[in-house]
Amino acid sequence: METRDVLSQRRSVHYFDSSKEISEEQIRELFDLVKLAPSGYNLQPWEFILVRDPENKKKLRKCAFNQHHVEESSTSVIVCGNMDPTKYAEKNFNDWVKHGYFSEIDVEKTMAQLNKLKEDENFCKMWTMRSTCLAAMQLMIAAEDMGIGTCPMEGFNPEMTAKEFGIPKDVLPIMIIAMGYESKAALPRNYRRPFEEIVHFEKF
Amino acid sequence: METRDVLSQRRSVHYFDSSKEISEEQIRELFDLVKLAPSGYNLQPWEFILVRDPENKKKLRKCAFNQHHVEESSTSVIVCGNMDPTKYAEKNFNDWVKHGYFSEIDVEKTMAQLNKLKEDENFCKMWTMRSTCLAAMQLMIAAEDMGIGTCPMEGFNPEMTAKEFGIPKDVLPIMIIAMGYESKAALPRNYRRPFEEIVHFEKF
Repeated sequence: METRDVLSQRRSVHYFDSSKEISEEQIRELFDLVKLAPSGYNLQPWEFILVRDPENKKKLRKCAFNQHHVEESSTSVIVCGNMDPTKYAEKNFNDWVKHGYFSEIDVEKTMAQLNKLKEDENFCKMWTMRSTCLAAMQLMIAAEDMGIGTCPMEGFNPEMTAKEFGIPKDVLPIMIIAMGYESKAALPRNYRRPFEEIVHFEKF
Repeated sequence: METRDVLSQRRSVHYFDSSKEISEEQIRELFDLVKLAPSGYNLQPWEFILVRDPENKKKLRKCAFNQHHVEESSTSVIVCGNMDPTKYAEKNFNDWVKHGYFSEIDVEKTMAQLNKLKEDENFCKMWTMRSTCLAAMQLMIAAEDMGIGTCPMEGFNPEMTAKEFGIPKDVLPIMIIAMGYESKAALPRNYRRPFEEIVHFEKF
């Protein structure tokens, strides 16, 4: 589908047809596109927990203040961000050295920086959210293109979600994205802040 | 362009042809797509400062630890998030009442909640980042589709940037996105964490 159409037509889906499943092949296709999202230093801190089992979706619905579409969707994704910036750094930097982006000295310096930043929890939360949310949007756009509807949700209890789904301490649950096939067309598009309000030329 | 192609071909551009400008018409077209990004409660906290003037780009380059592409790009966008969740709430909720999504009582309750959340600065930072970064990815994908290259950057001094570009206290500079026409093709795509590592079925 044309990108312009996907971007302008995508709406958040609140009513899913629970009888229509997303296949494992579709999941593979989808996340093979998601993984190409950009990230700071290419550190790719994202982690996606795919909740497809009916019992687990019930549990997740409880964590999400009983929002029905969590359970009615085919797959609800817990979008998480790894808060350790060093976690996947080595593999990436080795690749950078191979491609000539980075020297061995750059690797050493950057690893030292990341190890220092790692100590600042608030920094790490912001850091991981930034890149992980880019991947979350890539996910919703790729899904729309495949005919799969999505609904991002920020209303959920992160502690309860972490406990129920075995999410370790250094991984931050950031949002839930319900995915599946729409059962009822969305209402007209809601208010959008106009161009003139969101775009500031040269100064705020 | 096909969405799949845009998502899989997009690369961060580090070398821009400074002689090729993005027109005001293109800017309009681009941000008319960006504004359609989803956001929590449809609160659309994003604010974009478009730096196009050569002197201002020089200033922004200084704020961004001298990264050359900030100055060489046609337009560098300071992507900011408004940290006040009540800021654009009223217009949106009025629209929701009109569409039947919300009752007057829902508006009152939600406004009270948002007014409470507003007091928690750390919460508000995370809240605004979440939605604003979705819009940032929408921007990069829409730009790619228009043949415009982008490079997201998290390395910059937010305090200095706020001072130079008149960004008020309750608005958080989140990232810079340099935009323009590529002058030198990107090197081969870097390492990506594989599907099996980023996707966790049912549990982390």
